[in-house]
Amino acid sequence: MSSFTTLLHEIEQAVKPIAATGKVANYIPELAKVPSDSFAFSISQLAGASEGVGQVDTAFSIQSISKTFLLALALQEMGEALWHRLGREPSGNPFNSLVQLEKEHGVPRNPFINAGALVVCDVLLGLYDDPLLALQQWLSEESGSMALVDPVVAQSEIDHSDRNASLVHFMRSYGRINHRVDRVLEFYCRACAISMSTTQLANTMLVLANHGSNPISGKTRFSRSEAKRINAVMLTCGTYDAAGEFAYRVGLPCKSGVGGGIVAVIPNKMGLCVWSPPLDVTGNSAAGLAALDMFTTKTGLSIF
Amino acid sequence: MSSFTTLLHEIEQAVKPIAATGKVANYIPELAKVPSDSFAFSISQLAGASEGVGQVDTAFSIQSISKTFLLALALQEMGEALWHRLGREPSGNPFNSLVQLEKEHGVPRNPFINAGALVVCDVLLGLYDDPLLALQQWLSEESGSMALVDPVVAQSEIDHSDRNASLVHFMRSYGRINHRVDRVLEFYCRACAISMSTTQLANTMLVLANHGSNPISGKTRFSRSEAKRINAVMLTCGTYDAAGEFAYRVGLPCKSGVGGGIVAVIPNKMGLCVWSPPLDVTGNSAAGLAALDMFTTKTGLSIF
Amino acid sequence: MSSFTTLLHEIEQAVKPIAATGKVANYIPELAKVPSDSFAFSISQLAGASEGVGQVDTAFSIQSISKTFLLALALQEMGEALWHRLGREPSGNPFNSLVQLEKEHGVPRNPFINAGALVVCDVLLGLYDDPLLALQQWLSEESGSMALVDPVVAQSEIDHSDRNASLVHFMRSYGRINHRVDRVLEFYCRACAISMSTTQLANTMLVLANHGSNPISGKTRFSRSEAKRINAVMLTCGTYDAAGEFAYRVGLPCKSGVGGGIVAVIPNKMGLCVWSPPLDVTGNSAAGLAALDMFTTKTGLSIF
Amino acid sequence: MSSFTTLLHEIEQAVKPIAATGKVANYIPELAKVPSDSFAFSISQLAGASEGVGQVDTAFSIQSISKTFLLALALQEMGEALWHRLGREPSGNPFNSLVQLEKEHGVPRNPFINAGALVVCDVLLGLYDDPLLALQQWLSEESGSMALVDPVVAQSEIDHSDRNASLVHFMRSYGRINHRVDRVLEFYCRACAISMSTTQLANTMLVLANHGSNPISGKTRFSRSEAKRINAVMLTCGTYDAAGEFAYRVGLPCKSGVGGGIVAVIPNKMGLCVWSPPLDVTGNSAAGLAALDMFTTKTGLSIF
Repeated sequence: MSSFTTLLHEIEQAVKPIAATGKVANYIPELAKVPSDSFAFSISQLAGASEGVGQVDTAFSIQSISKTFLLALALQEMGEALWHRLGREPSGNPFNSLVQLEKEHGVPRNPFINAGALVVCDVLLGLYDDPLLALQQWLSEESGSMALVDPVVAQSEIDHSDRNASLVHFMRSYGRINHRVDRVLEFYCRACAISMSTTQLANTMLVLANHGSNPISGKTRFSRSEAKRINAVMLTCGTYDAAGEFAYRVGLPCKSGVGGGIVAVIPNKMGLCVWSPPLDVTGNSAAGLAALDMFTTKTGLSIF
Repeated sequence: MSSFTTLLHEIEQAVKPIAATGKVANYIPELAKVPSDSFAFSISQLAGASEGVGQVDTAFSIQSISKTFLLALALQEMGEALWHRLGREPSGNPFNSLVQLEKEHGVPRNPFINAGALVVCDVLLGLYDDPLLALQQWLSEESGSMALVDPVVAQSEIDHSDRNASLVHFMRSYGRINHRVDRVLEFYCRACAISMSTTQLANTMLVLANHGSNPISGKTRFSRSEAKRINAVMLTCGTYDAAGEFAYRVGLPCKSGVGGGIVAVIPNKMGLCVWSPPLDVTGNSAAGLAALDMFTTKTGLSIF
Repeated sequence: MSSFTTLLHEIEQAVKPIAATGKVANYIPELAKVPSDSFAFSISQLAGASEGVGQVDTAFSIQSISKTFLLALALQEMGEALWHRLGREPSGNPFNSLVQLEKEHGVPRNPFINAGALVVCDVLLGLYDDPLLALQQWLSEESGSMALVDPVVAQSEIDHSDRNASLVHFMRSYGRINHRVDRVLEFYCRACAISMSTTQLANTMLVLANHGSNPISGKTRFSRSEAKRINAVMLTCGTYDAAGEFAYRVGLPCKSGVGGGIVAVIPNKMGLCVWSPPLDVTGNSAAGLAALDMFTTKTGLSIF
Repeated sequence: MSSFTTLLHEIEQAVKPIAATGKVANYIPELAKVPSDSFAFSISQLAGASEGVGQVDTAFSIQSISKTFLLALALQEMGEALWHRLGREPSGNPFNSLVQLEKEHGVPRNPFINAGALVVCDVLLGLYDDPLLALQQWLSEESGSMALVDPVVAQSEIDHSDRNASLVHFMRSYGRINHRVDRVLEFYCRACAISMSTTQLANTMLVLANHGSNPISGKTRFSRSEAKRINAVMLTCGTYDAAGEFAYRVGLPCKSGVGGGIVAVIPNKMGLCVWSPPLDVTGNSAAGLAALDMFTTKTGLSIF
């Protein structure tokens, strides 16, 4: 097992200036308050060691990274039957989201567009009395420490949820949502408002690097096939409209969030998480993309 | 170096019945005439051996698989500058192709939708006096034997090219096409009408498995980075609207054609090609997908 | 002043069989209960006489005809300033409604698509403490008798309002809605649930036939220019995707509702209303369209 | 019969400054050369007199006004059967044209979008050996003097016809076009390149004002019903994305062209034509719209 600490330090120095080219998300006030020069990069190897540089123990808002965990939890419970409720193909671009949803009679294209994640929330509401608690427990076990919801961020998300409310009502008009709209929204907003550190998130990725079984939790969450499915969805749909760019530059399954975090998986080897709040025009962390690009280029650890 | 011949025979028996669930392409008469029970599966290992089952030396119409080679040739000549002419992101679905093309001012989303391949043809018309000859020479060198154009298929393609003519004129109205519309169409139709065997195609994939250098031709065609780019585009955009399904079930960069062929790449290891004419509803070879799925499942050779 | 009673009887006989080709709206249970052979046709002349055939005093659910009155009331109060909140151009077809709304940043194309009527409701919520009462009073004065809300229909509308809730939340995400979503929806649903007879509705149309001043109410509601505006919007947008067909066959400003009513205006002469519940594929009363077509053809009273 | 000459002079003075707010079409060089202060306004009354102000005898490029005459000629020959080839509903906006065409399997929404006029050209190619000559003869008879094609404009149109070529090939891919693409385009471009004066065009409108029979030609071209159809299509679709605005401000069936001309019809009374090259953002003559608005406001001759 090799140590990457020297390389991570080198990457930190190289990519921190890139953060200045991005813009911290400000659609909710709480996100805008995060210092734009925050940075952390953690890797967690299957063989056992976790290492990192920067603020690796600072919890930040995971935002859309939560979509990965919502999906994982739903697949763990339902298996392939989940795919009767939503698709797993790339969606083209955000412009199309509503057109596609209309054309496809309220069935979202994949679990990483908002409409899809909201359906997954509706599924989990039917599987757990308290799906948020279930998600937090799952994350705590997989990451090795507590995953908390930031109540201020959660409330801010709920107060700015008209667009998502529109999506849920729209799908509900096609009979695709089983629960009350406000319950779906509230669960979704709280899941996005979970705070975790890069150390925690890199640890959590091990379940996907190791085909469903994370040595940290000691649990088998799902089959090899389902782990492959999640990785495939991450690679093709995990980074908004930059999936092609990430596939090329990083060459790993990734999922990003507007809080500036990006998680990634190297199958059979490790989980990764980088955090830098300023986003590029595609909504992905500018320095985070550069850091992952540099990591796979220097190590040759891309899947391609 | 292991032999996969026994496995390939097993796969052949298992998947041939699946061909009956598909439908041979009939939009041009020549394709409809191909026997629906044709089958071949070849693999070509970097370490040197080529093996296969079925009609591995029967040439068939490569159709959209040619888009991979057009892209490879253009990247070889132009490198990253090619991407000023077109994008490399998934396009969502065919329904959107014209909307996207309009919204994005005539710049195609990626080189594997028709609009994108037609732009690549326009690029190659500016780089070679006879780009079709250049493409055939490249393919002959990479595959180890001659790659011929089927003149009957080519003429049939040209006679049924209204949809593609519409795309070229549309892009030309945005100033995105430099050559005469009929020249672009003719080159594109002839490239689609190239016939090759699964042996040839599996050999040709080695240039992508080996980061730009094919031991068969002994030539370095492009950089490691460009090979990675082509593989990434194949994985995210290579199989029409089933990219997510292929990424999950096969877990390899693939490119399919309506002639029933599918090529695939296992980085650092081998090139693959399977052929079975009947197509599923997404336009991909039904038995071909099943064969590649079975191959990666049995061998564990997926990239995920 | 001529009497049209003989002609109206003739039309009734001719078009009643056409009702059998249509289908009574059933998206809310209350509408599905209305006898499909209900029929009434009333005209109200500026010169003074009202006449009709069939169940001219039976109140039915006016549904989208209310959009005309919501628009009239908002224009009466705000004049041209209303058009800062929404457009007045045809919208193409329902398929596009969400695309257009997204492309046009949450500003609806016209007041007769649902999104537009919901904006008008939001406007009226800012102008009146009880806009529903104001609307009912206005209708009672213009029609000469009370206009009541059917509480069962209203509740049913509210219970099936996911699609409209989606639209309001969507526009609100662009900052286009000033009031609480549930208040906008409730007012809109109650306005659609108003019941009126063809006699009442034909009377109400006189304010548009007479350039803003209805002899029944004795009030001037708006300017000649604003009356012209409403008539123009009715002609170009009043009958869903059949505006062109209505313009040709009827040749009058019309507004239809899924309750089977259609109102029409002959400028300088009269108001009309026909009612027959079964709808054609475009959502307009099948026999109602035929009746208005026959009326204008026989009398030569089209505007063209 | 009243004389409107005083009013026309008043309008000329009032609206000429508005021309400065517009922009002369420049997508083909020949149009850009027309003096931007050109102006003419002609009316032709059924009762017999023709009058006007400005350059009423200067021929200008009629451009899309030709769509009205192509439609008239095709309806004259085919009657209602024409509508099996295309629709007659508003199309929303230009953004949608290709989406709609794809969604509606190559059948254009109406004869006044380019796709629709191109289908009408294809129809006329099947009805006449030389449809351009037939159109010119028809126009000469209806207008009272020769209607010539400007060969320089025509060639320029043909040289800039990629967008229209795209539309024709697209429809042809659905089997909606019977003739060679280049023949359809050439006829369409030549029809757009016809030059006529406002006097001629106002005269020609009499056939629509008088229900199919123009006193100038002394011929009955089509039925009252077909004249009504053309007027209805003009009102709902004749002025690009400003149909609602024209219906309100002018209140007459109108058809505009990018040469700066607008024709209009007052049923039972007169034909009108105004010409001023600078266009507003919707592609309609800025001063022309103002002139027609003022004419109907001052005379009260709107259809509403």
